[in-house]
Amino acid sequence: MTMDVLGYAAQSAETPLAPYQFTRRNPRTDNVVIDILFCGVCHSDLHSARDDWGGTQYPLVPGHEIIGRVASVGPRVTRFKAGDLVGVGCMVDSCQHCAACGKGLEQYCEEVATFTYGGADRHDGMPTFGGYSERIVVTEKFVLRIPDNLDQAGAAPLLCAGITTWSPLRHWKVGPGSKVAVVGLGGLGHMALKLAKALGAEVTLFTRSPSKEEDARRLGADHVVLSTDEGQMQAVQSRFDLIVDTVPNVHDLNPYIPTLVLDGTLVLVGYLGPLEPALGSVPMIMGRKAVAGSLIGGIPETQEMLDFCGAHGITSDIELTPIQGIEDAYARMNKSDVKYRFVIDMASLKA
Amino acid sequence: MTMDVLGYAAQSAETPLAPYQFTRRNPRTDNVVIDILFCGVCHSDLHSARDDWGGTQYPLVPGHEIIGRVASVGPRVTRFKAGDLVGVGCMVDSCQHCAACGKGLEQYCEEVATFTYGGADRHDGMPTFGGYSERIVVTEKFVLRIPDNLDQAGAAPLLCAGITTWSPLRHWKVGPGSKVAVVGLGGLGHMALKLAKALGAEVTLFTRSPSKEEDARRLGADHVVLSTDEGQMQAVQSRFDLIVDTVPNVHDLNPYIPTLVLDGTLVLVGYLGPLEPALGSVPMIMGRKAVAGSLIGGIPETQEMLDFCGAHGITSDIELTPIQGIEDAYARMNKSDVKYRFVIDMASLKA
Repeated sequence: MTMDVLGYAAQSAETPLAPYQFTRRNPRTDNVVIDILFCGVCHSDLHSARDDWGGTQYPLVPGHEIIGRVASVGPRVTRFKAGDLVGVGCMVDSCQHCAACGKGLEQYCEEVATFTYGGADRHDGMPTFGGYSERIVVTEKFVLRIPDNLDQAGAAPLLCAGITTWSPLRHWKVGPGSKVAVVGLGGLGHMALKLAKALGAEVTLFTRSPSKEEDARRLGADHVVLSTDEGQMQAVQSRFDLIVDTVPNVHDLNPYIPTLVLDGTLVLVGYLGPLEPALGSVPMIMGRKAVAGSLIGGIPETQEMLDFCGAHGITSDIELTPIQGIEDAYARMNKSDVKYRFVIDMASLKA
Repeated sequence: MTMDVLGYAAQSAETPLAPYQFTRRNPRTDNVVIDILFCGVCHSDLHSARDDWGGTQYPLVPGHEIIGRVASVGPRVTRFKAGDLVGVGCMVDSCQHCAACGKGLEQYCEEVATFTYGGADRHDGMPTFGGYSERIVVTEKFVLRIPDNLDQAGAAPLLCAGITTWSPLRHWKVGPGSKVAVVGLGGLGHMALKLAKALGAEVTLFTRSPSKEEDARRLGADHVVLSTDEGQMQAVQSRFDLIVDTVPNVHDLNPYIPTLVLDGTLVLVGYLGPLEPALGSVPMIMGRKAVAGSLIGGIPETQEMLDFCGAHGITSDIELTPIQGIEDAYARMNKSDVKYRFVIDMASLKA
C-alpha cells in the first residue's frame, strides 16, 4: 500500500519544475508521516534539478529544508505524536551500524546516507522525493523537533544552511574568545554569522561587496573585511582560529590562509570542485594551518543546533514564495538576489 | 671580541662549496660554545647554497643537523657543562615572548625564529653560520641534550629530519591503534617510518618504487602500497588517521585524500609550493578531511624526540662523508641516491 502525494518535480534538466503526482510508501512501524508546511530552497535543489553534478534521476522532487506537522506515527515511534512541529533535513536514513553512524555523524555514513531526495530508500528501494510536496514519510531517527517559539518558515533553512555552518563551528570548538571569519554572505554565510555570534565568538565577514557591510553587522559580524583591499587583508594577518568558507563557486583560497592563527583551519562548506588557483603549501607549513571540508551535520548535532536556535531566537532571514514561483526564485538565487533564503509556503500547492 | 672558525661555504649560487675562514661572536653569558663532531646534510642546505628559494646571503655556511661537544659555557648557563654531548637543529634563537614561543613552538615564532644559517643574530645582527664548521655558539635554550647511547653520526639527522616528522606525529596524537601512512622514502620518510612504528602505530609506506619495499619493512613499515597501482590504492580507502607526506617535489595529493579516515589529515612536511594538480574539495568535504602543513618542531618537542630516540635506540640510517665530498653528496642527494642521509664527519675539516 502506498499514499498519493502532490508535489513539484523536474522532469528533465531542461524543463521547469511543474506539478507532479507521485506515491510514497505507507509508513513502516518506526516511521513518522509529516504534513509539510514550509520548505527552504537550497542551491543543491537547483543543481540537482538541472543535473549540474550529473546523475540526477528524473522525475526529481527537490527540497531538504522541511518544516511540518506530524500527521501520524507508526506503532514503534516513541518521540513524536500527531500535531508535533518537526523538521527534516538532507538525510532520511543511514546504515546505523558503521563507525560514523555510531558517532552520530550520519552524513559520513560509510554505506552512504539516504538523502532526502534523489536517493533510494535502503529498505524497499523506492526513490526518495523531497519537500516540495504535501507530505513525507521519514524514519523516526531522522525527524527533528522544532522549538515552538521559532517562526516556522524562518526555521526551514536551519535544516541545511543552519546545520552546515553549525557543524564546523562546533567541531572546531568555537565559543567565547574564538575569532571566526566567514567568507561569503548568502544562505550559508548569513547563518554562519548568526550562529558564530550567538556562540560567543568575535565574528568577521570577508566580502568583495562594500554594500554588504551594514547587513553583515545586523546579522552578527563585529568586523567586515573587504577581501579585495590589500590593506584590510594585511590588517587581519594571523587573526582567525577558524574560517568558514561558504562560497559556492571556485575562488582563490590563498589570500585567506595567512589570516589564520597558528593551528587555524579554513573549512570549505559550499564549494565542490578543484581548488584553483592552486593552494600554496608555504603559508600552511609556516603555521601548521589546515584546509578542510565539512558536509552538513549529523542528526544529534542538528537537534542540538535547533534547540540552540530556539534558546537564542535564531532563524534564517527569508523571502517567502509560493511553489508556483519556484523558477523565479531559482533565477534570483543564481544572481545572489535573495536575503538570504527563499522558503516555499507549501499551502500554495493546493491553491 | 670574536673567534676565528674554519668552515665550508658557498660564495655564490654557481660555485662549489669551499673552505672559508670566518668569525663567530664570543659567547654571551647565556651561550654555549660547541665543538662540532658531525653535521647532517639536509635538502635545505643545497637549496640555500644554490639560491633555489631566492634571498640567500653569501657567503653561506650551511648545516643544521649538528652534533658536538660543549667546549665552554657562559656564566648564566645552567644545564650544560664542558664535555656534554649536545645537538643544534634548525634554530638558534627566537623572540621568546610571543604566543608561539610561549607554547614551545619557536619554529612558528611570530617575530620569526633565528635560523641556524643564513639568518642574522637578533642581538648583534651578525650573520648566522651553520654546522659545516669547527665550532658554533648558541643560546642555551636552543641547545639539545643528546642521549649518550646513540651513535653520534646517526643522531645528527634527528635534529631536522627527525623532528620534522616527530612533530606532526605527536601533534596529531599518533600512538598505539593509530594507522599512519608515510609518502616518500628519503631522509624524512625513513625517519617517519621509524618514529611512527616506535610510537606504536600501524605504519604504511606509499611509494612509486616496488624496489623500496624490503627496506621500508626493515625501517618499520607494516605495509607498503604502490601508489601507482589502482587496486592497491583502492584497498586502502578510508584507512589512515594521518598521512605524513615527505615528498619534496610537486606531486598530486588527490589520490591520497580518499585513503584518510573520517577527520583524517594529510600533513605536508617536505614540499614548498603550489598544490598542483589542483586539490579537489569533494573528497575533503565527504569525510571532514584536512590538508595541513607542519614546519620542523619546537625546542621542547625536539628534546622529547631525542629522549624518545635514546630510549628506543633510534638513529638515522646514514652515509658518512668527509666535508671535501660535499658536492658529490649533493649530486647524489639530488638523485635520491642515499640511504638515507649524508652526514659530514667534521674531523675531516682539519685533514
